[in-house]
Amino acid sequence: MPTVPDWVKQLKPAGPQGSELLEQERAKSKVNTSALSTFLHTKAGLERKHKILAILQQEKVFDKSQNYFAGRVDRFETALARAKKLRQLYVKHGWTNDDKQCANELISEPGPYGLHESMFLITLQGQGNAEQHKRFLEPAQEYKYIGCYAQTELGHGSNVRGLETTATWNPEDKTFTIHSPTLTSSKWWIGSLGRTANFAVVMAQLYLGGKPYGPHPFVVQIRDLKTHQPLENIAIGDIGPKFGYNTMDNGYLLFNKVKVPHISMLARFSSIDPKTNKYIRPSSPSLIYGTLTWVRSTIVLQSGGVLARGVTIATRYCSVRRQFQDRDAQSPETAENQVINYTMVQIRLLPLLATCFALHFTGRGMMALYEANQRKLAADAGKGAQSGNRGAGPEETNSSSDLLADLHATSCGLKSLASYTAVEGLEMCRRACGGHGYSNFSGIGTWFADYLPTATWEGDNYMLTQQVARYLLKSARSVLKGNEPTNDTQSILSNFLARQDQGAAFDVLTKDEDIVEAFAWRSSFLTFEALKHRDEQKRSWNSLLVDFYRLSRAHSQYMVVKNFYETLQSPAISSELDPPTLDVMHKLFRLYALHTLEQEASEFYTSSAVTVRQIQLARTNSVMKLLEDIRPHAIRLVDSWDFPDWQLDSSLGRSDGKVYEDMFYRASELNPLNNITVDPYPDSPVLFREKEAQKAKL
Amino acid sequence: MPTVPDWVKQLKPAGPQGSELLEQERAKSKVNTSALSTFLHTKAGLERKHKILAILQQEKVFDKSQNYFAGRVDRFETALARAKKLRQLYVKHGWTNDDKQCANELISEPGPYGLHESMFLITLQGQGNAEQHKRFLEPAQEYKYIGCYAQTELGHGSNVRGLETTATWNPEDKTFTIHSPTLTSSKWWIGSLGRTANFAVVMAQLYLGGKPYGPHPFVVQIRDLKTHQPLENIAIGDIGPKFGYNTMDNGYLLFNKVKVPHISMLARFSSIDPKTNKYIRPSSPSLIYGTLTWVRSTIVLQSGGVLARGVTIATRYCSVRRQFQDRDAQSPETAENQVINYTMVQIRLLPLLATCFALHFTGRGMMALYEANQRKLAADAGKGAQSGNRGAGPEETNSSSDLLADLHATSCGLKSLASYTAVEGLEMCRRACGGHGYSNFSGIGTWFADYLPTATWEGDNYMLTQQVARYLLKSARSVLKGNEPTNDTQSILSNFLARQDQGAAFDVLTKDEDIVEAFAWRSSFLTFEALKHRDEQKRSWNSLLVDFYRLSRAHSQYMVVKNFYETLQSPAISSELDPPTLDVMHKLFRLYALHTLEQEASEFYTSSAVTVRQIQLARTNSVMKLLEDIRPHAIRLVDSWDFPDWQLDSSLGRSDGKVYEDMFYRASELNPLNNITVDPYPDSPVLFREKEAQKAKL
Repeated sequence: MPTVPDWVKQLKPAGPQGSELLEQERAKSKVNTSALSTFLHTKAGLERKHKILAILQQEKVFDKSQNYFAGRVDRFETALARAKKLRQLYVKHGWTNDDKQCANELISEPGPYGLHESMFLITLQGQGNAEQHKRFLEPAQEYKYIGCYAQTELGHGSNVRGLETTATWNPEDKTFTIHSPTLTSSKWWIGSLGRTANFAVVMAQLYLGGKPYGPHPFVVQIRDLKTHQPLENIAIGDIGPKFGYNTMDNGYLLFNKVKVPHISMLARFSSIDPKTNKYIRPSSPSLIYGTLTWVRSTIVLQSGGVLARGVTIATRYCSVRRQFQDRDAQSPETAENQVINYTMVQIRLLPLLATCFALHFTGRGMMALYEANQRKLAADAGKGAQSGNRGAGPEETNSSSDLLADLHATSCGLKSLASYTAVEGLEMCRRACGGHGYSNFSGIGTWFADYLPTATWEGDNYMLTQQVARYLLKSARSVLKGNEPTNDTQSILSNFLARQDQGAAFDVLTKDEDIVEAFAWRSSFLTFEALKHRDEQKRSWNSLLVDFYRLSRAHSQYMVVKNFYETLQSPAISSELDPPTLDVMHKLFRLYALHTLEQEASEFYTSSAVTVRQIQLARTNSVMKLLEDIRPHAIRLVDSWDFPDWQLDSSLGRSDGKVYEDMFYRASELNPLNNITVDPYPDSPVLFREKEAQKAKL
Repeated sequence: MPTVPDWVKQLKPAGPQGSELLEQERAKSKVNTSALSTFLHTKAGLERKHKILAILQQEKVFDKSQNYFAGRVDRFETALARAKKLRQLYVKHGWTNDDKQCANELISEPGPYGLHESMFLITLQGQGNAEQHKRFLEPAQEYKYIGCYAQTELGHGSNVRGLETTATWNPEDKTFTIHSPTLTSSKWWIGSLGRTANFAVVMAQLYLGGKPYGPHPFVVQIRDLKTHQPLENIAIGDIGPKFGYNTMDNGYLLFNKVKVPHISMLARFSSIDPKTNKYIRPSSPSLIYGTLTWVRSTIVLQSGGVLARGVTIATRYCSVRRQFQDRDAQSPETAENQVINYTMVQIRLLPLLATCFALHFTGRGMMALYEANQRKLAADAGKGAQSGNRGAGPEETNSSSDLLADLHATSCGLKSLASYTAVEGLEMCRRACGGHGYSNFSGIGTWFADYLPTATWEGDNYMLTQQVARYLLKSARSVLKGNEPTNDTQSILSNFLARQDQGAAFDVLTKDEDIVEAFAWRSSFLTFEALKHRDEQKRSWNSLLVDFYRLSRAHSQYMVVKNFYETLQSPAISSELDPPTLDVMHKLFRLYALHTLEQEASEFYTSSAVTVRQIQLARTNSVMKLLEDIRPHAIRLVDSWDFPDWQLDSSLGRSDGKVYEDMFYRASELNPLNNITVDPYPDSPVLFREKEAQKAKL
């Protein structure tokens, strides 16, 4: 690396220094950062993080300084080396899975063992029988087998029923033939497959006696355990670079009539009797239904923290960065203004800051509901239909559990809303950083790019909204029939029906509970509108997809507002936070709710939940006043998310405010492009021959 | 590269083939693609493109097959080799600047000569005097000097007045001392500087006799012309990787009291008399003001084509991709549905398709106005104030030309709206491609990432809106005083004032001209609201920034709707397009306008431009019907943008529909990650030693 001249090293940023500005910010707020951190993450969670962080920072392989510079092949090799070291640390320190999860969050990049450690082990565990646990799960847990989960195909994403890979039962030798009949049947996007895995769970259409039995999971060895070459008649490779996620080897996989033994078909729920050659029907598919709900709830919970990283970076940088004078300033010589003082910056960042808390509390509420329903779920197992894996299942489900159905639908809608909110919010944060947001050193761009697939996986965010609409329509039909409400969704629909004629008069500007009711009202209004279109006007499902999307969004926003509101009412928060901190939390609730209400104004008018005048006041008075009130606490509020600098890996988001020093250091001392000297003239080769350069210097 | 087995090479995608589907799409529409292409690009433009394309495709250096795989250093070296070859071709074929621009668009990546060929040459040309042209411009035109334009600093982006770099006049030896007093004064983000340039135009604060005279441009040699090493007391480097734009060497630059001769200060508009040591005031800064307007108009014009690339790719892929059956289909065995048949996909893509045309026609209208005003501008030169470069200039400008002021304000607002619309639209297109949109082979992600800075440069998109608001407030004050309107903006404000009391009754659902009037009404309403806040209620400028942003957006949307409408009324379009094609264009106009109206519903209600019922009907009837009507023409409409496959470089957007074949080819045969064999076990090193692999195979 070329050395930086001494006279450059002695330069400081123009004052006031970033460190001074952040100190001033922290001094002017009474928000109790530490108590709020504990409320968000628990004491145990915080302790764990700092323990694991200390371990990781001692290992050279986790050094992040070349992350933003390295090309794909190098990044992948480093990521695999990190995955190996993490496994070694896990064994050495006797880590729990929570410890490992925490380490992954601190490292903040997808790793090549990712799908082995999640979907491969989970599927073997959950869908294998005892014999299969011994044969496959145990060596996999010891990392003798490294696996992946091969479901999606080149031509088939969300629609599992459309998968083309076949698994044909051969009664004569009691084997299955796994086959890829077309190019589009190639497994595609399979994480950990491209270079790493030697085993795969393969989802394939089961054929028995010429008849299709739908998609089923098969455990298949795909690479030689010694040479790591693909086995005969199996083609494997990495699918190439992506917008993000490039430390992961998403792969493709094709089979040319590969025979696997009877034990390969995961047999806990359905199987083939090798004696009779008959198919044994699934016994309890609702457990899978439950798992999907759990995964989606996790996404909701994480979305708050995902967004909070971007908000932390942008809020700190906007407090350090100064541009222009206030236009109404009396003297033209006034110092430049901190960017965060401009209302145009506040309106972009502070509602997002409120959103981080809103999503976090909503995710927490979902997880609590999920836990509470686990027993009920197990009891109900076997009664529901296996529809969780499907993009658009039947309009009427047969599930006997209203709570489960409610949780499932809610998790679909919230997953869609929460992940898009995080995606769009991160990009908003990047832009709020101005030009420097575009540098990789901002730490937002790569984080955004790696998070982006969350909007597509575990149910495409647009597809999922159909499930919410289907559930709401079903609930509305039940309420219309006069059935007694059995859950919150039915209650708000029923309440709307009862009050519909007399109209709503919600005092959203002063009463918190009225805000929640206004969101419920709008969601209910849209539900009955959609029902009218579908049941009375008999409009096609396809023609209503846009309405369903809006409906799902409205209902999910109601859930978020409600969860935030309920968290503020909880005894836990009052006992953990002091009044000044609670007061700011309450303002964040109002900012999230009123800003959302104003953004979605037209649905609130149309449903008569509020008046045009109320919306105007919410915008010009309430929201603007809340921005002003929350502004002094912004830095302490982002501090409470407690992201270590090592995790953020951001020049702009440094907790000590040394933004410019860090930008300059990375550019001048870590950047490999500065190692080359080019010849700039059009008729010469690109690279300057070093010898000539030396000669010319003499 | 590992060879792909023969049995894989023989596989085809499941039918119907993509090529068949696109053929069917093209067969079912009567849109005259060729006539529409000509209307969009002119016959000469199309011929030029195909001539240049043939030349580029013959040169190995322009081969794109490794673009998505290469790391930063390789990509930069290739980009420089391409820039050199382009320059050679330019000389060899006697290209015009339009030819070169066309070649750059086909290559579609920023190149290291980019800022030399634009800002460096333009600034020397426009701001240098005859002597400076001979001394600097001529060698620069011959590529003996390769230059860049060094304005932005680490601590200063939009606010040019805040720049810290100084240029102090030394009367004793008639030189300037260029100096970087702080770290934040480091020039930063300077394109073509990091590795390539040996000259720079440096914007620095001029000091003369201890007094500051504001920022001025200086031509400075920064690297040795032979060794290409930085000159003494100059530090230069590349600033590191970015979210996109990585083929460009954006750089940093610091000076440690570097002396440059008197001729270095570009002297066309202002200068220092070396005899008297006196400052000579600028003579005609309005020319700069005009240049900025021109650059912004270009951005508006290009934004349509920028977005059209994404829309082309997504529309083609959504016509080839099939997922799920229609829910209302009678038989469960029905073949999977083309994704573009789902209304949820149509509502995302087709309004964007309409937007491409809307922005293109608006940009064209702006350019025409600009050309028409050029003479007037030159005549007015010298009267206006030098405020074009500033993020927030004076609220009242002294420009004597209402047309110029109108054009300037309009270009600010439209640049902001158009570039964000393109940015957000491209991301929407990427998502509409589902999971595969995330692959680099989609061709959208990298295009999006490279385009993104357009939202920040040439005026930050948020900052710019203040200029629009300032202009509208000024116009409103003039109208309120009873002055006769002298341009369209004043006319619509005056019209609003006259009709305000009797109210509006626009028939937006059936009359095109009423749609335009409704947009004008909303913009005028917001203008007078903002004026009331500022002038009557005396609210602070800062507290109104959010209102100003909305106002700018509203006014710019009015401009776009108006330009689209006027294009449809023009004799040119009626003579060039046949009635079926014109009919589809008219539907695209209505789709753009009514979809925008519905998206911005609350401002239309609040201003009483339309009723709640009209908005509901616009959404549920008009827009949904337009989607259905335009759907069959989607492929022909995107074809009319005439992007060669070589330019798109996209598997998903292939004009022949061979989407899956291309995805597979790139992944399996071009992907360097597939060259490495790893050892997957946690306790071994990452890379499998090839010898051992061989041994184990035997």
